[in-house]
Amino acid sequence: MASREQTRLLKRFKRSAGRAGIFGVAMVMMAIGAGSLLAQQPALNLMPMPANVQAGSGELAIERTFSVSLTGYTEPRLERAVQRFRRQLARQTGLVLARDGQPGKPAAGKADAGAMSLVIHTGHASQAIQELGEDESYTLDVTSGGAKLNAETPLGTMHGLQTFLQLVAVTPQGFAAPAVTIQDKPRFPWRGLMIDSGRHFMPMEILKRNIDGMEAVKMNVFHWHLSENQGFRVESKKFPKLHEMGSDGLYYTQEEIRELIEYARDRGIRVVPEFDVPGHSTAWLVGYPELASGAGPYEIERRWGIFDPAFDPTNEKTYKFLNDFFGEMAKLFPDHFFHVGGDEVNGKEWDGNPKIQAFIRANGLKNNEGLQAYFNKKLQAIITKHGKSMVGWDEVLTPDLPRDIVIQSWRGQASLAAAAKQGFRGILSNGYYLDLGWSAARHYAVDPMSGPAAELSADERLRILGGESCMWSEYVNTENVDSRIWPRNAAIAERLWSPQSITDVSSMYARMDAESARLEWLGLTHNTYYRQMLQRIAGRSATPQEFAALHTLADVVEPVKDYAREQLATTEPTSGTALNRVVDAVALESDAGRRFAELVERYLAAGCKDEDSANELRAQLTRWRDNDVALESLAQKSFLVKEVVPISQDLATTGKVGLAALDYLILGAKAPADWKTDQLTLLAQLQKPKAQLLLIPVPAVQKLVEAAGAATACGAK
Amino acid sequence: MASREQTRLLKRFKRSAGRAGIFGVAMVMMAIGAGSLLAQQPALNLMPMPANVQAGSGELAIERTFSVSLTGYTEPRLERAVQRFRRQLARQTGLVLARDGQPGKPAAGKADAGAMSLVIHTGHASQAIQELGEDESYTLDVTSGGAKLNAETPLGTMHGLQTFLQLVAVTPQGFAAPAVTIQDKPRFPWRGLMIDSGRHFMPMEILKRNIDGMEAVKMNVFHWHLSENQGFRVESKKFPKLHEMGSDGLYYTQEEIRELIEYARDRGIRVVPEFDVPGHSTAWLVGYPELASGAGPYEIERRWGIFDPAFDPTNEKTYKFLNDFFGEMAKLFPDHFFHVGGDEVNGKEWDGNPKIQAFIRANGLKNNEGLQAYFNKKLQAIITKHGKSMVGWDEVLTPDLPRDIVIQSWRGQASLAAAAKQGFRGILSNGYYLDLGWSAARHYAVDPMSGPAAELSADERLRILGGESCMWSEYVNTENVDSRIWPRNAAIAERLWSPQSITDVSSMYARMDAESARLEWLGLTHNTYYRQMLQRIAGRSATPQEFAALHTLADVVEPVKDYAREQLATTEPTSGTALNRVVDAVALESDAGRRFAELVERYLAAGCKDEDSANELRAQLTRWRDNDVALESLAQKSFLVKEVVPISQDLATTGKVGLAALDYLILGAKAPADWKTDQLTLLAQLQKPKAQLLLIPVPAVQKLVEAAGAATACGAK
Repeated sequence: MASREQTRLLKRFKRSAGRAGIFGVAMVMMAIGAGSLLAQQPALNLMPMPANVQAGSGELAIERTFSVSLTGYTEPRLERAVQRFRRQLARQTGLVLARDGQPGKPAAGKADAGAMSLVIHTGHASQAIQELGEDESYTLDVTSGGAKLNAETPLGTMHGLQTFLQLVAVTPQGFAAPAVTIQDKPRFPWRGLMIDSGRHFMPMEILKRNIDGMEAVKMNVFHWHLSENQGFRVESKKFPKLHEMGSDGLYYTQEEIRELIEYARDRGIRVVPEFDVPGHSTAWLVGYPELASGAGPYEIERRWGIFDPAFDPTNEKTYKFLNDFFGEMAKLFPDHFFHVGGDEVNGKEWDGNPKIQAFIRANGLKNNEGLQAYFNKKLQAIITKHGKSMVGWDEVLTPDLPRDIVIQSWRGQASLAAAAKQGFRGILSNGYYLDLGWSAARHYAVDPMSGPAAELSADERLRILGGESCMWSEYVNTENVDSRIWPRNAAIAERLWSPQSITDVSSMYARMDAESARLEWLGLTHNTYYRQMLQRIAGRSATPQEFAALHTLADVVEPVKDYAREQLATTEPTSGTALNRVVDAVALESDAGRRFAELVERYLAAGCKDEDSANELRAQLTRWRDNDVALESLAQKSFLVKEVVPISQDLATTGKVGLAALDYLILGAKAPADWKTDQLTLLAQLQKPKAQLLLIPVPAVQKLVEAAGAATACGAK
Repeated sequence: MASREQTRLLKRFKRSAGRAGIFGVAMVMMAIGAGSLLAQQPALNLMPMPANVQAGSGELAIERTFSVSLTGYTEPRLERAVQRFRRQLARQTGLVLARDGQPGKPAAGKADAGAMSLVIHTGHASQAIQELGEDESYTLDVTSGGAKLNAETPLGTMHGLQTFLQLVAVTPQGFAAPAVTIQDKPRFPWRGLMIDSGRHFMPMEILKRNIDGMEAVKMNVFHWHLSENQGFRVESKKFPKLHEMGSDGLYYTQEEIRELIEYARDRGIRVVPEFDVPGHSTAWLVGYPELASGAGPYEIERRWGIFDPAFDPTNEKTYKFLNDFFGEMAKLFPDHFFHVGGDEVNGKEWDGNPKIQAFIRANGLKNNEGLQAYFNKKLQAIITKHGKSMVGWDEVLTPDLPRDIVIQSWRGQASLAAAAKQGFRGILSNGYYLDLGWSAARHYAVDPMSGPAAELSADERLRILGGESCMWSEYVNTENVDSRIWPRNAAIAERLWSPQSITDVSSMYARMDAESARLEWLGLTHNTYYRQMLQRIAGRSATPQEFAALHTLADVVEPVKDYAREQLATTEPTSGTALNRVVDAVALESDAGRRFAELVERYLAAGCKDEDSANELRAQLTRWRDNDVALESLAQKSFLVKEVVPISQDLATTGKVGLAALDYLILGAKAPADWKTDQLTLLAQLQKPKAQLLLIPVPAVQKLVEAAGAATACGAK
């Protein structure tokens, strides 16, 4: 057990890199609350915020005769993009656009541009295989008479179409896009989302709808994590035992992969595959144990964590195999970049193999790290031979590697900056791990150019290509994956696209909320899955009152953060563990909790004199205080509800304490010091996770208690 | 305009057949309320209720090792059914069933039956092409040690699997199916759902998920309405101008049709196509005007109603064409029954064509009805020649037709009984028109064997084959179609499957609510679409309070019933009209309205002494009274909200009046007669539709006012 604990800690360190703390999220939320007092609500629900926006006057009405014309350079991909645009516009408005089999103006095509609602002009083609750093800029000019979208390449055109869709809003007169002039281009050329198809297989339709979501927020790299200890997910014609023995039958055929790459290209998105070696490779070694450093045989791993199996870097057959396999994959995946993982080799199989240790000594490699550097160099040569640039996690960085490799950093900006100084390019993922359950605000605050990166020279800065959010999938399946990515990923997308100066958290949340609804129109299920999972938890015989009670509780709890879920597990979770509990259903960031915290801030900032806020607080706190009765009734019927009874009781206590504090604040009477101390002690207890859940309103109620007991502020007037 | 109005009235008469009345639904709801006081909540959420259910003791735990074995006769379709069963079981429980790529027991297959959780035994194959009246019976025996499902044919096996899925429930210990013994078989052999793909095209995935829904509630005929004035929806290789010129490009390829038939067969469902002739045929005549009775040319119809174009029954080319076309379709659709429509020929083109009138005289056909009878006989011969039995609406019934035809009755049980006496078989659709917006209770009360049908002899009764619900699609598109069919269609399915004695409305609603959740697991969107449509109406900038206000209002309004929507339209609706208003988003039957009416009944029945009910009533009425402020704020932003402001104000009034009545009732003071009269006058005003919506809580509040002003009951104690 000690060794498993160790690997967990190692992994935790890797992924959270010291930034965590169970209540970190709540503290960040408080900061947001304060921010929202200062910030203006944005008039336009654009996300990511464009580089330059100038409001005009008037608006362009969106009616069923709305028409689009493609001028300048065009290609079938652009025509498909316009069709997609029209479908999305119809979905956002409910209009039956004239071309959908109805009479009216013609739509896309090179027809008379003068009569068109939206005239697109594209300068020239983009690269046949989408490249890093292509021109993605566009300008969009909307007036009451029509709209013009100009872009150098189809990439910019597609981004501009998404911006237009975000402009469309319901108004008192009908649907319309406000008059506006936008000049826009991305801050970073590499804006990625990684999805882990290894730990939980993610079927094609899920990837497709997430790629639709990426397009919506202008991300341009889909990093596809395709191999893990728990599964090898790609069909190999050369080495069929990889997918046949390593995937439980859950893999992508080469035809599907080509289809997905085409799908992504149609949306201006590159696909970078990751095949993780030499560690994280149990599933490969099930079919090819002769390449392992240990004795084998191997079975697909069912647990989570870091495991011993690793390729044998001293065996020339390993390189023969990787050369042949990567050659096959290099043809399948056209992108110029090829990710080889390289992370988290625990070295145990290497330590345990005398031949390997002898090799280290014989070749002066010093230790396992030296052996991995040796491996990396040989790997890099293979990748280069197949015409690609190698990408790897921090561990692949070895000073004597060629400078075309790209480091994906889970360690942070310092590591990235150090690499840039050595001449390596890098992308940031530290701070963008979606599975850790951080708030959008916390992700939003992470900037690839902050800290040591801010000190780089201009040339060095160019080596920082951008960043990638990462969706590791231990606790994520087909049902809840959308909700673990969205809408928070939109905040990361904005960080990577918009100017560095765009940092207003309140504005970000307002726009993210609006974009969240639009993402559901695209087919993402981050909101709809929630009700269905709660319905299952409640059971089909729950009364409406009981169901509402579960909903009220679920709305204000969040899963524990970072790697606390593994720490708090009573039985070891595996890939066979059902993800059907309240902790799996609730959002990673509670909207209701955030809004309550903002309300408390607003109330306190107004000197406890705003009656509307006081009434709203009272209504909310009363609902929480009284919620437990119906919840406990439901708990008599469902084991999945039973486990949240303790935190439901905590919510009742939170409501009770909050109401008492509110009474002091409304009366303007300072609460006795003893009372305050007792309540804070009580509330501190309620911060302990229960059923792997955190009760989000607690810190805001603490503020009410503090204020009630304070000599100044609202406590004593 | 007079003639269009006339056709509307004709059509309205056809579809509602004198049963309507704008508040018919509300009156039925009151009856439900009363019923629920007497009925026991059912222990098992089975729908349709099986013919025979005997409760056992204990339960069968459902765990991830749950396994299924097929014994006796088997075939690939049964193996697919078991796979589908396992997927649904996983979806309903969230369990990772052992076979989904994880270690554990093997699942489906002819393996050791003794160790299996569910052992299936099927007696023999069903017909290669599913036939009317095949054995669909099954028995299901669940004990704590395992379950046994026995059926004569795969049809019964598939029904039994659905019953098992309905038994699975969350319990205090985990998921389980209660011990029970069920013997089950259908009351009627023809239990259908008709979907109109003509007026609004319905893409494949929508049909598929509705077929999944049909399987869930044991319906066995998908009646596919494939041609209409507004669209001809099938690819014809022989007459390509039919789909090329008559569909706006929105049609099913023959490959898709074969796929859907296979999909339905896999679920024990026959597919009966309908090609409507000689009327309802504008879209055919766009490409083939030479077959029409009028001069042409023709265009696809965009309006709703009954139109003049009709085939020329005096032209031998018509029969040559129909013979060739139906021959092609008879091969494409394997079912033994073939629907030729035959309804609603308005006769205008026949009247206006001297050649046709001369033909009528020359052949002694008397009038247009005689001409249609002549047409029917020739049509019947064509259908018979191609090996099929003809189905048609009431109008095709002509005494000298062969007795193998089937009459689908929109006229009602009397018409059906008269046909049965003449030796014709029939199915009932009168009372099952889903587009009319009736409550589930009202549909549920319609029995094919009631009224004159109850008087038939045993032999004649056998000719009444069952019934079909009908989803006509004037006001239905891909977004809201599921919600117009489900969950109410489950009540009709029960009427057609379960014993005639199963009539308890309260039990029906409880089980329908439970089944509704399960239908969403299957992919139907009747609940999830609602929030998304409201979100669009509210706009993406609505505050949570504003959105909640719209939700609260939308929860208690229903679209006007029967054909009132066309009567109340300010501009003529067409196929280009956006279906994006509140009237398009809200459910056809308000759950919240139904529950409120039940609550009022409960409160009054308890002599106004039940404090919990009083509190619940007060909370509900207060919310309604206060809801308008936030709604009017939202109406400043959205034209789609603006149109419901008047009915929102009515809801506020309803709340206010209800609270006043409640005060009298709680005090036990009789309200003054003047007050009562004034309030009832006021409430009567609120029953007028606004924005094509009805305010559902009004009748229940009327009851409170009546009671408050009554000398006996609760008014004066």
